[in-house]
Amino acid sequence: MRDAFHEDLDKISDQLVDMTKLVGTALERATAALLEGDRTIAESVIAADDDIDALRREVDDLAVDLLARQQPVATDLRMVVTAMHMSSDIERMGDLARHIAKVARMSAPNVAVPENLRPIIADMARVGQKLVQATGDAIGSKDVYAAVEIGRIDDEMDELHKKVFTTLLGDWEHGMEAGVNATLLSRYYERYGDHAVAVADRIVYLVTGRYGNPDEGLTR
Amino acid sequence: MRDAFHEDLDKISDQLVDMTKLVGTALERATAALLEGDRTIAESVIAADDDIDALRREVDDLAVDLLARQQPVATDLRMVVTAMHMSSDIERMGDLARHIAKVARMSAPNVAVPENLRPIIADMARVGQKLVQATGDAIGSKDVYAAVEIGRIDDEMDELHKKVFTTLLGDWEHGMEAGVNATLLSRYYERYGDHAVAVADRIVYLVTGRYGNPDEGLTR
Repeated sequence: MRDAFHEDLDKISDQLVDMTKLVGTALERATAALLEGDRTIAESVIAADDDIDALRREVDDLAVDLLARQQPVATDLRMVVTAMHMSSDIERMGDLARHIAKVARMSAPNVAVPENLRPIIADMARVGQKLVQATGDAIGSKDVYAAVEIGRIDDEMDELHKKVFTTLLGDWEHGMEAGVNATLLSRYYERYGDHAVAVADRIVYLVTGRYGNPDEGLTR
Repeated sequence: MRDAFHEDLDKISDQLVDMTKLVGTALERATAALLEGDRTIAESVIAADDDIDALRREVDDLAVDLLARQQPVATDLRMVVTAMHMSSDIERMGDLARHIAKVARMSAPNVAVPENLRPIIADMARVGQKLVQATGDAIGSKDVYAAVEIGRIDDEMDELHKKVFTTLLGDWEHGMEAGVNATLLSRYYERYGDHAVAVADRIVYLVTGRYGNPDEGLTR
């Protein structure tokens, strides 16, 4: 049997995992809206962001309530504080998916992304999915090595981000509007990855008590 | 005489105000580096971001320590939690100034921003300064009306952001690289403003207990 504090903490952890699922779906659908020029999907992603925001407030309220009732100290306290920071990062991932959906909506029924960039954007979405799933798993497991792996997956995102810029600065024949959109979209996917890494870093700090590169000095 | 809890809370509040000063200086100097093509200033902004990150960790550690030692409840608890969220937003403003400095460094001694955009960027920096000063004042005073004013100032930033895009999508004769840089720079300034608004929203929530538009239903 777990005590009341840890039961509440498990509940918060479950809600954070639920948030990762929602922001994963948001990214997937926003990308579909973007690459298919589908306004209806774009609208639904934008509307669904309210659910993510609401869940974030629920997590934060539960965390504050837990602090007030149980007055945890040491590691227990750190875990609750960390959960609040995580909810903030995951909520922001939802905002970024919403931004992508807004670009999709603005151009629909046309596709905002020129054909030569679509495979890169599709790859960014795929890596984003891997990141958010790994983040959900790491929150559930508190596994430092799983958290470290998130940084490695994010390197793939950064490579794709660079690839977008290489494409933009090459023989770009699609005009400035498509260029501005591509710049912003690439930034949104990249930031989505950064927030996954921020969550992972918090897990590493929670478990090891260290900031910075969590992998240094860790061997399996 | 204030009790130990409120003395510690004052210290946290002072540190948050110090953070706003550092990120204000960072924005001012990053913009100078950008508009003058000055690599030395750019480097110093990038290096100084470590101090902001360190101060943020100090605030967070002090807040966690305060929670553990004093075990506050109700409004006192909310104030400590809010301080941690604020430190996160203000630190992020420092990151954005660092991003601007990195664009400056990449182009120096040339100026990354074409002449016709420089006045708009200078205006964005000026509005950013107003925002960060107002944010520092609002943290110190916990004045809801000062916090609401921050949202109004940020509207100016959003207008300037739109102006950059209008310029980009008009007769842009500066090529794609300058276009990509302008897109990103404008986004950095705009996000800097958003984080100031996020801090302001937290002050409003702390004082009024309400999310959403703090101005609705408030009259002076």
